[in-house]
Amino acid sequence: MFKKHFCPGRRVLVLLALSLFTCVFISAMVRQVTAPASTGTSAVAPQSGSLPSADSDEKRIQELVAGNHIIADQGVVDGFGHMSVRSLKNPAHFFLSQSKAPALVTKDDIMEFDENSEPVDARGRTPYVERYIHGEIYRARPDVQAIVHSHSPAVIPFGATNVPLRPIMHMAGFLPQTTPIFEIRSVAGDDNGILVENRRLGAALAQALGKSPVVLMRGHGAAVVGPTIRIAVFRAFYTQSNAQIESEALKLGQPVFLNPMEAANVEKTLRGLVNRAWEIWAEHANGSGTKR
Amino acid sequence: MFKKHFCPGRRVLVLLALSLFTCVFISAMVRQVTAPASTGTSAVAPQSGSLPSADSDEKRIQELVAGNHIIADQGVVDGFGHMSVRSLKNPAHFFLSQSKAPALVTKDDIMEFDENSEPVDARGRTPYVERYIHGEIYRARPDVQAIVHSHSPAVIPFGATNVPLRPIMHMAGFLPQTTPIFEIRSVAGDDNGILVENRRLGAALAQALGKSPVVLMRGHGAAVVGPTIRIAVFRAFYTQSNAQIESEALKLGQPVFLNPMEAANVEKTLRGLVNRAWEIWAEHANGSGTKR
Amino acid sequence: MFKKHFCPGRRVLVLLALSLFTCVFISAMVRQVTAPASTGTSAVAPQSGSLPSADSDEKRIQELVAGNHIIADQGVVDGFGHMSVRSLKNPAHFFLSQSKAPALVTKDDIMEFDENSEPVDARGRTPYVERYIHGEIYRARPDVQAIVHSHSPAVIPFGATNVPLRPIMHMAGFLPQTTPIFEIRSVAGDDNGILVENRRLGAALAQALGKSPVVLMRGHGAAVVGPTIRIAVFRAFYTQSNAQIESEALKLGQPVFLNPMEAANVEKTLRGLVNRAWEIWAEHANGSGTKR
Amino acid sequence: MFKKHFCPGRRVLVLLALSLFTCVFISAMVRQVTAPASTGTSAVAPQSGSLPSADSDEKRIQELVAGNHIIADQGVVDGFGHMSVRSLKNPAHFFLSQSKAPALVTKDDIMEFDENSEPVDARGRTPYVERYIHGEIYRARPDVQAIVHSHSPAVIPFGATNVPLRPIMHMAGFLPQTTPIFEIRSVAGDDNGILVENRRLGAALAQALGKSPVVLMRGHGAAVVGPTIRIAVFRAFYTQSNAQIESEALKLGQPVFLNPMEAANVEKTLRGLVNRAWEIWAEHANGSGTKR
Repeated sequence: MFKKHFCPGRRVLVLLALSLFTCVFISAMVRQVTAPASTGTSAVAPQSGSLPSADSDEKRIQELVAGNHIIADQGVVDGFGHMSVRSLKNPAHFFLSQSKAPALVTKDDIMEFDENSEPVDARGRTPYVERYIHGEIYRARPDVQAIVHSHSPAVIPFGATNVPLRPIMHMAGFLPQTTPIFEIRSVAGDDNGILVENRRLGAALAQALGKSPVVLMRGHGAAVVGPTIRIAVFRAFYTQSNAQIESEALKLGQPVFLNPMEAANVEKTLRGLVNRAWEIWAEHANGSGTKR
Repeated sequence: MFKKHFCPGRRVLVLLALSLFTCVFISAMVRQVTAPASTGTSAVAPQSGSLPSADSDEKRIQELVAGNHIIADQGVVDGFGHMSVRSLKNPAHFFLSQSKAPALVTKDDIMEFDENSEPVDARGRTPYVERYIHGEIYRARPDVQAIVHSHSPAVIPFGATNVPLRPIMHMAGFLPQTTPIFEIRSVAGDDNGILVENRRLGAALAQALGKSPVVLMRGHGAAVVGPTIRIAVFRAFYTQSNAQIESEALKLGQPVFLNPMEAANVEKTLRGLVNRAWEIWAEHANGSGTKR
Repeated sequence: MFKKHFCPGRRVLVLLALSLFTCVFISAMVRQVTAPASTGTSAVAPQSGSLPSADSDEKRIQELVAGNHIIADQGVVDGFGHMSVRSLKNPAHFFLSQSKAPALVTKDDIMEFDENSEPVDARGRTPYVERYIHGEIYRARPDVQAIVHSHSPAVIPFGATNVPLRPIMHMAGFLPQTTPIFEIRSVAGDDNGILVENRRLGAALAQALGKSPVVLMRGHGAAVVGPTIRIAVFRAFYTQSNAQIESEALKLGQPVFLNPMEAANVEKTLRGLVNRAWEIWAEHANGSGTKR
Repeated sequence: MFKKHFCPGRRVLVLLALSLFTCVFISAMVRQVTAPASTGTSAVAPQSGSLPSADSDEKRIQELVAGNHIIADQGVVDGFGHMSVRSLKNPAHFFLSQSKAPALVTKDDIMEFDENSEPVDARGRTPYVERYIHGEIYRARPDVQAIVHSHSPAVIPFGATNVPLRPIMHMAGFLPQTTPIFEIRSVAGDDNGILVENRRLGAALAQALGKSPVVLMRGHGAAVVGPTIRIAVFRAFYTQSNAQIESEALKLGQPVFLNPMEAANVEKTLRGLVNRAWEIWAEHANGSGTKR
C-alpha cells in the first residue's frame, strides 16, 4: 500500500516535469516570434513624449544611433550619407559611425574623432572617407552640435543648377533666402574627386556653409547642421521636403516664398516642436524592419 | 479497492488541471502573437460596412482617433497637422488632440476646447499652437462638424503660385472652380509668423474659407472641412490627389476641368460612398504598424 | 486484477484524449497565426507557375478575388474602381463584387449580373453604381472576358488633355497608337454626373472603346479590357506605368514611340508571359496585409 | 505486484511518448511561423560586413539569388528584367534564372547557359526569351562578370528621347559623358519585336554597349554590366537614381554635370564602398516579405 500511494505521486511528478518542460519549450519558441517587435522599440522609448534627459556623451551617442535609423527610414539617406554629434566632454571632438549604412548603425559602430577628424581609438574600424565634413564644420561653427551629410535626390538638382533653394513652406523656415552651394571645383580644380576627403576640402565646405544651416554640394548632396541632433535631423528632412515642393511649384509658375521675417518667426516657433516629429519618426523607424 | 478506485480519479484530475493549465498558458501566448492585428481592428470594426451607429461625443472621439491614424497613414499629414470634431453635446465646443503627431494620437490625448479655442480641462496636456483654425471655422460655419489641417506637399505649390486648384477628377467634385487662398500677409502684414496662432488669424482664415470646403494657406498647407469626420478625411485625401493630378496635367497641356454641374452632381453621388474609402483606409492604417 | 488491468487502460485513454485535445487546440491556434499567409496564398497557388487549370465560373470568381487584391496592392485602384469577369456558363452575364473597396473583396462579395447589369440575386448586397461599364462592354465586345475600371492618377491627365496616350515602352505594346477618350459631355451634355450610371452611358462608353483594349474617361479614369482576368490586370497595370513614363519623357523632349509593328510583335510575345507578373503580384498582395 | 509495478512505468512511457509527440508537433508548427524570416536571412548573412569569401561558381550563384531579390526590392525591376553572372569554371558560360519574376528566384531556378545562350541542362525549365543579352555581352566584353537587364521607369524616357543620360551625381560616376542607346530598328528594321530574342540582336546590343557600363534600350529599358555582381547591382540602382535626378534638374534649368575627371575619380573611390550598399539592400530585401 505504501508503494501504491507513492507511485501515483511519482507519476504526477514526472507528468508535472513533462508539462513544465512543454510550457517552457513552447514559451521560448513563441517568444522568438514576437521578439523582433518588442526589442526594437527599446532604443528610443525612454525619450518618447518627455523632455530630453540631462545631456551627456552617452545620451548623445544613443540619440545618434536613433538619428541614423531615422534619416535612413525617411529616405534622407540611402546606404550612404552619415551624421555626427559633437562631444560634450571634449567639444573639439565628435562622434560618428564607422563606414556603414546608416540604417545598420549600432552603438558599437560609433567612433570618437579628434579635432583633425582622425579616430581616437579605431579598434580596427574603418572611418568614413568624408569625416572631414564634420570635423571642419565643428571647428568653424562653435554653435553647431550635430551634422547630417546626405545625398537627398530632391536636393541634388538645386545644387546642380543656378535655381536657388529657398523656403517655400513654413516647416523649412530655417532655410536662408538663398541656400549656399559648395562648388568643389573652386577649391580643388576640375580634376577633383567630388568627395570631401581631406581637411582642406572640409574647411572650404565650412567656409561655403558660412552661418547657414544648410550648404548644397554640387553633384553630391548637402550638409545640414543644427544645435542638437534632433534639430539637425528635422532640418535634413525638411530641406528635402522643401526641395520637392519648390521643384513642383516652379513648374507651375512663379511661387511666393517665405520672406526673411516669416522664415525667422516660424522657425522660432517650430524649434519648440521638433520632438513631435522625432517621436513619430523614431516610432516608424523602429517598426520598419530595416535596422536592428 | 476504494482507494484504488479513487486514486486514478485523483490522478486524472491532476492531469486534467495540468492539461488545462498548458492549454490556457499556450493560448495566452499565442494570443499575444495575434493581438496586434485583432485588437488594432476593434477601434473601427463596429462601423465597417454598416451605417454609422447613433451619434454621440464618445463616438465622435473614437472616430477622431481613427481619422488621425488614417490621415497620417495616407500621407495627408506627417508629424504635424491635426484634425478636430465639433462637440454634439455643446456645439460651441470641439475636440482635438493635445500637441502630438497624428499617427500616435490615442483617446486619452483628445481634449475639449471652448468657443475661444481654449482647453476646458487641460490636465497638463499642451494644446496645438494652431487650435484657432478649428475654433474660428466652427464659429463661422455652423454646417461644419469636422476639420483637417494639413501640410500636404502636393497642395502647397497651389497655395504659393497663382495657378488655381480646380477639380480635374470626379473624386474631388467637392472642390470649387477656384479654391480660395489665405494669404496671411493680408491680415498680419509682412512680419507675420505664418502660423494661425490666435483668434484674429483664425477668424481671417475662416473668412477666406467662406463657403468653400477647402482653403489653401500660402506657404503652409490647407484647411479642409466637412459635415462629418469621414467626409472631412475623404476631402483632405482627394484634395491632395487632385493637386497631384492637376499638377501633372498642367505640365502636359491645358486640361479640361469638371464644370460646376459635373462637380456638384458627382459630389452628391460620392457622398454616399464615403464609407467605402473609410473602411479600406482604416484597415490599412491598422495594419501599417506606425501607430498604436 | 481485471479492474486493475482495466484502470490503467482507461487512464491512458483519458490521457490520450487530453493530449489529442491539447494538440488539436494548439494546432488550431497556431493555424490562426499562420492563416493570413497560408490561406491567402491558396487562392492563387494552384495557378502559380503552371498553365491555368480548366476554366469554370468557380475558378473565374476565385481569380476575380485575387485580381481585386492585386490591382489595389499595385495602386491601380484605391478604395474605388472595380473589376469583373464574364460568366462562362452564361456569357451574357458577368461577375462583379458588391460595392466595396477592391482590397477587401472576398468570394462572398461577388454577385452575378444579367445582360442589363442588374443583379441576379442581390441578397441585400448593394451593387456598384457604375456596373453598366461592365455590362455594356461585354455586350459590345464578345472577345472581352474581363474588365478593370480604375482611377489611376497617372492616367487621368491624359484623359483631361489633348495629349494622346501612346505606347512608349514594350510592356504596353497592347496600347493603340492613340488611346481613345470617352468625353461624357458628348452623350450626356454639360449637366452630366461624370459616372457611367445607366445603360445608355455604358453603351456610349463601349462605343468610344471600339476595338481598343483601353478607353480613357475624361475627368474620371479608364476602362481596360482583356481576353482573361490576368491579361486585363496586366494591361491595367502597364497602362498606368506607360502613362508615368510617357509623362516624364514628354517633359524631356519629343519621344520615339513604339510603331504599330513593334507594338503588335512585342504584345504577342508578352502575352505568353503574363503569368510571371501575376505570380509576383499575387505573392506581394498576399503579404501586404491590406486585405483579408 | 510485478504487474502493478510495471503498469505505472508503461503508463509513464505512454505519457512520455505523447508529450514528446506534442512537443515535436508544436515545434514544427511554430517553426512554420518563424521560417520565412529566419531562412530568408541565411542567403546573404555570410557576406554581411566582411570581405567576400573566396570566389566559386557556388558562391556566384548564391550572390545571384540575393542580387535578384535586391533589384526587385529596390524597384530596379518589377516582375520582368533579369540578371546573370559569368561562370568562373567555364568563362564562356553564364548563370541565369529560369523565366521567373526576380523577387521569386531561388537557387533551384538558376540554369547554366553555354556560349550561344542555350541551356546546358534545362531539366524542363523555360529560359528567358532575352538570354542573348547576356551571352553576347559576355562574348564581347571579357571584363564583364555580371549583367542586369532592367525596365527602370526612370531610365526609359532617356532611351526614348535625344536627351543624353549623363552623370549628375557622384554615385553615378561610372556613367559615361553620354550613355549609348541601342535602337533596335537600326539592326532589325521597323518591323522588329523590341525584344533581344536571338544572337544577332544580342551581338548588336553588345556593339552598342561598346566599352560603356550601361546601354539604354529604346522603348524597353537598359543593360548594365560590371566586374562583379555587387558592382552590377550598384550600377543598375544608381543608373535609375541618376536618371530621376537628371530629369528633375533638367526641368529646373541647365545643370552642371560631373566632368570626365570627376566621374573617374569618384567612381574609383566608390568602387571600394559597394559592399556598404549591398549590405543594407540585402537586409532590406530579406525583410520585405516579397521573396522566399
